[in-house]
Amino acid sequence: MLLLIQSVLMDLLEELISAARCEMEADCLLEGAEIVNTLSGELYRADVAVHKGRVVGFDCCSAGVVLDLKGAVLSPGFVDGHVHIESAMVTVPEYARAVVPRGTTTVVIDPHEIANVLGIEGIRYMLDSSRNLPLNVYAMLPSCVPATDMETSGAVLGADALSGLIKDKRVLGLAEMMNYPGVIFRDPEVLKKIKLAEEKLIDGHAPKLTGRDLSAYVSAGIRSDHECSSLEEAEEKLRLGMYIMIREGSAAKNLLDILPLVTPLNAGQFLFVSDDRHPADILQEGHIDFMVRTAVSHGLDPILAIRIASLNAARYFGLRNLGAIAPGYRADIVVLDGLDSLKAVEVIKDGKLVAKECHLTAPLISFPSPKGASMKIKILDAGSFAFKSEHSLARIIGIISGQIITKSLSLPPKVDNSWVVADTQRDILKMAVVERHKATGNIGLGLVQGFGLQAGAMATSVAHDSHNIVTVGVSEEDMLTAVLKVKEMGGGLVVANEGQITSSLALPIAGLLSEKSMLEVADGIRQCTKSAQDLGCDLKDPFMTLSFLSLPVIPELKLTDKGLVDVTKFKFVPLFMENA
Amino acid sequence: MLLLIQSVLMDLLEELISAARCEMEADCLLEGAEIVNTLSGELYRADVAVHKGRVVGFDCCSAGVVLDLKGAVLSPGFVDGHVHIESAMVTVPEYARAVVPRGTTTVVIDPHEIANVLGIEGIRYMLDSSRNLPLNVYAMLPSCVPATDMETSGAVLGADALSGLIKDKRVLGLAEMMNYPGVIFRDPEVLKKIKLAEEKLIDGHAPKLTGRDLSAYVSAGIRSDHECSSLEEAEEKLRLGMYIMIREGSAAKNLLDILPLVTPLNAGQFLFVSDDRHPADILQEGHIDFMVRTAVSHGLDPILAIRIASLNAARYFGLRNLGAIAPGYRADIVVLDGLDSLKAVEVIKDGKLVAKECHLTAPLISFPSPKGASMKIKILDAGSFAFKSEHSLARIIGIISGQIITKSLSLPPKVDNSWVVADTQRDILKMAVVERHKATGNIGLGLVQGFGLQAGAMATSVAHDSHNIVTVGVSEEDMLTAVLKVKEMGGGLVVANEGQITSSLALPIAGLLSEKSMLEVADGIRQCTKSAQDLGCDLKDPFMTLSFLSLPVIPELKLTDKGLVDVTKFKFVPLFMENA
Repeated sequence: MLLLIQSVLMDLLEELISAARCEMEADCLLEGAEIVNTLSGELYRADVAVHKGRVVGFDCCSAGVVLDLKGAVLSPGFVDGHVHIESAMVTVPEYARAVVPRGTTTVVIDPHEIANVLGIEGIRYMLDSSRNLPLNVYAMLPSCVPATDMETSGAVLGADALSGLIKDKRVLGLAEMMNYPGVIFRDPEVLKKIKLAEEKLIDGHAPKLTGRDLSAYVSAGIRSDHECSSLEEAEEKLRLGMYIMIREGSAAKNLLDILPLVTPLNAGQFLFVSDDRHPADILQEGHIDFMVRTAVSHGLDPILAIRIASLNAARYFGLRNLGAIAPGYRADIVVLDGLDSLKAVEVIKDGKLVAKECHLTAPLISFPSPKGASMKIKILDAGSFAFKSEHSLARIIGIISGQIITKSLSLPPKVDNSWVVADTQRDILKMAVVERHKATGNIGLGLVQGFGLQAGAMATSVAHDSHNIVTVGVSEEDMLTAVLKVKEMGGGLVVANEGQITSSLALPIAGLLSEKSMLEVADGIRQCTKSAQDLGCDLKDPFMTLSFLSLPVIPELKLTDKGLVDVTKFKFVPLFMENA
Repeated sequence: MLLLIQSVLMDLLEELISAARCEMEADCLLEGAEIVNTLSGELYRADVAVHKGRVVGFDCCSAGVVLDLKGAVLSPGFVDGHVHIESAMVTVPEYARAVVPRGTTTVVIDPHEIANVLGIEGIRYMLDSSRNLPLNVYAMLPSCVPATDMETSGAVLGADALSGLIKDKRVLGLAEMMNYPGVIFRDPEVLKKIKLAEEKLIDGHAPKLTGRDLSAYVSAGIRSDHECSSLEEAEEKLRLGMYIMIREGSAAKNLLDILPLVTPLNAGQFLFVSDDRHPADILQEGHIDFMVRTAVSHGLDPILAIRIASLNAARYFGLRNLGAIAPGYRADIVVLDGLDSLKAVEVIKDGKLVAKECHLTAPLISFPSPKGASMKIKILDAGSFAFKSEHSLARIIGIISGQIITKSLSLPPKVDNSWVVADTQRDILKMAVVERHKATGNIGLGLVQGFGLQAGAMATSVAHDSHNIVTVGVSEEDMLTAVLKVKEMGGGLVVANEGQITSSLALPIAGLLSEKSMLEVADGIRQCTKSAQDLGCDLKDPFMTLSFLSLPVIPELKLTDKGLVDVTKFKFVPLFMENA
């Protein structure tokens, strides 16, 4: 078998050499365009010969297919250096359908969310379902599953669990090391993970870390960061040798803040990444192509922008055949209408035309979803969300519109016959987090201000990072209706009112991903959002807000299935304030 | 055992983090200098904390040793991306003694010459003797041993022979693929070697290759070239994605020709290499430091020059902890007196001061030389070099002063009683190549014009690429005396006259390397050269000229142990011209 593989590869090598010398017809010729040469830093006219998916030269005699590309500019395919595909709520094939026509031909995924639900099986599913696509998919192994032990996750992935995957050829290292206290205070399990990835790469995630602590973090071998939100932060990290992954996600947007730092002398240290980007943003604005356009419209040299969007990530990740249009490189090429508008009009993957006018033309092979229910919940009834007042003042989560941090408020809740109830006048709603991985029966109960719902309830199984079911509502019956609908669908987004489901979007894969297209998912989210807004919610993106209410690593006050967390103190606190 | 190694490494990791946070005293603080930050492209004041050989930060509280470096500029240690240490005729430790004080802290060697003599054992010797030095030594495996079958070499290294070494951590790939016809015409053994190195790197060596053939060569995965001798050649190779290793050796000097091509936008694709650099040049001019100074004095931005001399090679070879002064990087640092004169005044290797004022201060551990004689010669006498005239005209090698190419001349040799003898009036001398690897008894006989010797003979066992013994002389007796002295010394350089040895330099390691210091070797070469010149030789470097007379891949006419080679036709030709 090994012999057979070697002989096939040998044939490929011979064919490439032979086609480059015009001893045989090349598969394809891209004729008439200008190419962005990310290696020499130039733009010039060149006809690109492609054979067996590789660029073989620029002086082709004859080709099986000739594509007339006069007037166009060819760029190497774009690379997203750090992305959680789960944030797009679609499968990898459907993600490819959306981003490939926009010029992205390679993504380095961090399957952190699905790993929190399904563990190693989730990572394997993402890797397996991403084969044979017109998109190169590499993975970094989630380093922090779970992010904390303050919520119940579907899996706990220690270094030993990850060790079985680290040698996979498509696994490039360890993903965003969010547990920076674990690094700088030398948690043995964290160091073990770092050791595991020593021969590969370790991505960082260290918002606001600075000075000696940052030096310590970098000294541990962590060589990138995508959390820079200011020029000064990026500058310090750049000087310490980190690759700066400039992020333009849906919630976190850093491109315009970081861009002024980029110069021709330091540009090699920058990458473009999307991190978390929602369906509507990908469909409306774009993906890495959007970052290229935005950067150029703000003054960055287009050749540098394209290099940052392609070659730099390839170099950082050691992907030697990606990021340039040159002999031996994979023929992953974006056909741009020009360097002014920088719009992808066609996309060529491994030498084949796979997308045209923003649509994937290549067939997609679908992949079976992971088996087994991911909604394991102990029997619930409306009483599950009922609780009595213990003291006059309660700790209430205060929403800040458009942000994922919250305030910790102290307010007297509305009480009806000693039972705490929602108070629509003061916009204090009931909230619950229902554990769904192990049917522990854990239900975290709390109160939240800022959703604006006047009736009904909403629920979601997308709830960072452990993705239990989080619900907010005016009526406990509607909260139950919504949660049971989430369970019935195997996960998803739900709005309920007066015992009826108003809107829903099923996310049956791990409770995180739809099996539908990104367009359908975007439409589903839009409908659920509208239903919530119809019930009085005045948040722009209520389900995104909801999905971060249970993340106990983001200040100030969060609710998990285990209870209320004061994130500034990293400890559980009672809902009611005893000394009030 | 594995557990133990892991635990030791874990301790290192913990220590680095701890020292970076100033929880413990750092080993060393480099205080008061400016640093060249090759990553951010800046120069600024910074105190560098070093612990356990690594940089850990720039904000140190206390350190065991404080070096006051006020007024100095710190650069990352220089990297020579392609060097045959054999050309310096010293062992690796002695090479380190010479180049480390000049700022070179890493070399990527191609042990091509010693491999031609000793095969795998020679490569292993170079790797083994380069451990525990104040110099990082990595190797590329010689790809073309022997370069041709037109001479007898000491070893034949096919892909199978190399496969045992390719996984060695210090082996970075396959060295200069000189056999470009083998690549583009798809010689199975050549493709097998390329396949072997597929996961690592393959360096190129393709002088003047252009157009489709160059594309074919690059398509095979060959990603660098150090043979560019013109701007146009370098530009074409750069556009095809090759890393351009700018070479400044002793014979081949390309720096000033290629330099105008370098811009901030493409500088990432350039490296500095020495390839073949002789003792006197290293000692008098310098090594990579010389290239940096020369480039800067010709207008290159010093920060770019330093980046090319350090980070670029590290990036090309995937050496993630080299090429920058940043946390986690090895503390291999050159203390320069400033960016104007760019002279190394001190060198720090793995955090320790190892050289000061051009002298190595660190102790060197010597390494035992390879065992076994490398001069296996069948019994010779003066008659071994005698031959009769067969026709009136002979093919005579015509020396071109200062070059390694020769002319093929047709001249009537001087004949005495039907025996061909030297003719000092017309400067036609006798020449022989004596096979010395297998005692085959092969002796190639010929004539050469241009040495100018009026008496005596010279001989050397440094004779590219197979390193048989080559001798040129007026007197056959002196040729014998010289060759026997080479044999007696186990290899080396000899000048003989009237039966006496005038000068000699022993090179007992594989007939290529001395056991002495570079200074002593340079002195030995100078003496041998002077002796040859005293006998009338008017060549500047007669032993270098001599060492290329048997290399049958450089035009036009060469002599090997197998006979006279017409290199333009790649075939053996008779000494005498039948139709004349």
